Amino acid sequence: MAEKTWVRMVTAQTPTNIAVIKYWGKRDETLILPVNDSISVTLDPAHLCTTTTVAVSPSFDQDRMWLNGKEISLSGGRYQNCLREIRARACEVEDKEKGIKIAKKDWEKLHLHVASYNNFPTAAGLASSAAGFACLVFALAKLMNAKEDNSELSAIARQGSGSACRSLFGGFVKWIMGKAEDGSDSLAVQLVDEKHWDELVIIIAVVSSRQKETSSTTGMRDSVETSLLLQHRAKEVVPKRIKQMEEAIKNRDFGSFAQLTCADSNQFHAVCLDTSPPIFYMNDTSHRQVKIISCVEKWNCSAGTPQVGLFVCFSLFCLGQCASHSRSLTLKQVAYTFDAGPNAVLIAHNRKAAAQLMQKLLFCFPPSSDADLNSYVIGDNSILKDAGIEDIKDVEALPPPPEIKDAQRCKGDVSYFICTKPGRGPALLSDESQALLHPETGLPK
Amino acid sequence: MAEKTWVRMVTAQTPTNIAVIKYWGKRDETLILPVNDSISVTLDPAHLCTTTTVAVSPSFDQDRMWLNGKEISLSGGRYQNCLREIRARACEVEDKEKGIKIAKKDWEKLHLHVASYNNFPTAAGLASSAAGFACLVFALAKLMNAKEDNSELSAIARQGSGSACRSLFGGFVKWIMGKAEDGSDSLAVQLVDEKHWDELVIIIAVVSSRQKETSSTTGMRDSVETSLLLQHRAKEVVPKRIKQMEEAIKNRDFGSFAQLTCADSNQFHAVCLDTSPPIFYMNDTSHRQVKIISCVEKWNCSAGTPQVGLFVCFSLFCLGQCASHSRSLTLKQVAYTFDAGPNAVLIAHNRKAAAQLMQKLLFCFPPSSDADLNSYVIGDNSILKDAGIEDIKDVEALPPPPEIKDAQRCKGDVSYFICTKPGRGPALLSDESQALLHPETGLPK
Repeated sequence: MAEKTWVRMVTAQTPTNIAVIKYWGKRDETLILPVNDSISVTLDPAHLCTTTTVAVSPSFDQDRMWLNGKEISLSGGRYQNCLREIRARACEVEDKEKGIKIAKKDWEKLHLHVASYNNFPTAAGLASSAAGFACLVFALAKLMNAKEDNSELSAIARQGSGSACRSLFGGFVKWIMGKAEDGSDSLAVQLVDEKHWDELVIIIAVVSSRQKETSSTTGMRDSVETSLLLQHRAKEVVPKRIKQMEEAIKNRDFGSFAQLTCADSNQFHAVCLDTSPPIFYMNDTSHRQVKIISCVEKWNCSAGTPQVGLFVCFSLFCLGQCASHSRSLTLKQVAYTFDAGPNAVLIAHNRKAAAQLMQKLLFCFPPSSDADLNSYVIGDNSILKDAGIEDIKDVEALPPPPEIKDAQRCKGDVSYFICTKPGRGPALLSDESQALLHPETGLPK
Repeated sequence: MAEKTWVRMVTAQTPTNIAVIKYWGKRDETLILPVNDSISVTLDPAHLCTTTTVAVSPSFDQDRMWLNGKEISLSGGRYQNCLREIRARACEVEDKEKGIKIAKKDWEKLHLHVASYNNFPTAAGLASSAAGFACLVFALAKLMNAKEDNSELSAIARQGSGSACRSLFGGFVKWIMGKAEDGSDSLAVQLVDEKHWDELVIIIAVVSSRQKETSSTTGMRDSVETSLLLQHRAKEVVPKRIKQMEEAIKNRDFGSFAQLTCADSNQFHAVCLDTSPPIFYMNDTSHRQVKIISCVEKWNCSAGTPQVGLFVCFSLFCLGQCASHSRSLTLKQVAYTFDAGPNAVLIAHNRKAAAQLMQKLLFCFPPSSDADLNSYVIGDNSILKDAGIEDIKDVEALPPPPEIKDAQRCKGDVSYFICTKPGRGPALLSDESQALLHPETGLPK
């Protein structure tokens, strides 16, 4: 080993993901093994990602971690599981230029520093733990010269946070539940990369939650123990849906994709409601999720007759009748999906649909009058231009969505919107200026 | 047949009922045959009932009906089915005193007048159609001297409104789904009468609904067509629950009764949420149902350790942890159940629990300051006295329920409360002054 002064660092960036076929329920709590397969879309890391720098140095006397600038404990079982698993796969590292040589066995004794940063609010319920554990495992694997591919790494990230395994790839990703008792075959595979279906536009409505939600760990445990519908969902419903969803993604069949995405989100929340005591993730005090679901369902419904234009009034037709009578005719424009929190994730078929969706959303959920539109719609907000919206006056002048009877404007219900798209998987950042740790001290910059 | 001037009348009173194991989904839409058995408790007709007078006279030139004083059409299929079925069972009637003799075959030609009145708001979502069709069929059967027992009559009332069949008996009632294609074995039976478990107190929170709800007919159809959980519920979950519920009722085991009632209400709403597009009966704009469920769940949870008193603070213990860790210890005080509308039905173990529940409910949902307490808590409001509440000042002085952290008072969320109890089945009213039709003209009084 070289002299005690060196610090070896790796910086990586990893995306978040949103499940379109949901993961809900573990068959093994420690190894984090799910009761069913799930499928997610990876979100563009330009708008939502975790950046993590990992460093090793003989001068470090303990493992330490900083999250968004604040030191946090690594003593939790989930961090320890990831660190143990990745250390077991460490290989020899040699950097002749810097005079560093780390033998395989040295990794057991060397301590690590980790600094992690989310480019979005951690507490906003945007899968920060998924991106975070994926980034930790990916960065450590590179630091330690581990030979495992991203699927193999995903099985390690899974032990930090189940959905983290799906953040090891871009595009659309399947988490295979696996069969092995040790969890070795419970890992993520890429279905298609982010270029396969790049016309999709993803809009996230971030809402502030005033109520304490049930943590997903606790919620899943309660559902597994008490819901009489969960096992049926896991064993009978999801396996078929997974196949249908894979087919829809492969064929870029938006109608099927949207139908499956919405139905699976609703079924996940149905299982939550079937839990004792019931879990209400979709039941926030200001009714935002129901408003959004209703908005999308009515639009998807009215959009079934595109020849007369999207903005022609179908209110009466839509209210109640649409669902059962014209299901086969509908030309879906938007899918919605909700995780174990209040945010809505909307997936639009293409930019045109996204621009129309943005108009409807801004009508229903306008910013406060003194708000800066560019901080109310963030990410790729070029969609605003497509929607003909340049400033707050354009928002105020928006017509009510014709398919929604008595559409009301609810200021303050949404904190902000993030516009994004399917994105790539983890990447190494070679530019040292992007590292979060100081190259000499290994401490946060 | 006697001369044309006579009018023969019968007046009956029939209760409403609330399902504790829910009916959701038809296997035959015309005959109204359900996909599973259901169990209900009949509500005391003193507080919630339909009174119906049926009359026959050779002077009537068509079938006519008045509901709450307003003439309505009898041309709908459901009315026609009930009228046809009951006419087919009509027998000879002789009233020597009045000089009336109706032969069996005369019923085909004679026309009927029907006047029906609910002693509660029809639009309040309190199963008025159940009581209404049960009363119509029961009264006609008596008028026509039909020999069928109440179970046989329930199979006719079922064709008017499914849940009406359960209003043919008092106490606890099971609607057996039956197997026959013609629906002849899909009928109600009494499990126990209203005296068997007469300590139960039922409190209904009637709430005004600003949103248009999905009708249960449309909602059921959509669920049967699209929910992948409904069939599993009907075939696997409900049959076991029915047995458990029958056992709980037989043994007056309130813990099991409450657990099954709450779980089945939640599962019914879960199936609604699993429907495409999703049906949200529990998602009203002011979040009342979730507040009520949360209130009951936390209380039932904290009440698990009665030795330290119901009003000792268990907030922290209850928030999240209680459910999974102390489920077996809990001593349930109250069950909740919600139908396809916004009203909450709460069933308290006994008067003591009901008085405590009333205190909690009036804390969380107080009347407006100028309200008359006797029109805010109606029915058997002697429970107020048990709760130590005499006037609005007592309501204002109520302490917050200790098991609810940050309990808030929401004026105006509840329109009024109805206090009632399990009640008797249909009854004939022999006092002619209670008839709704004029004994000579056969027209509404």
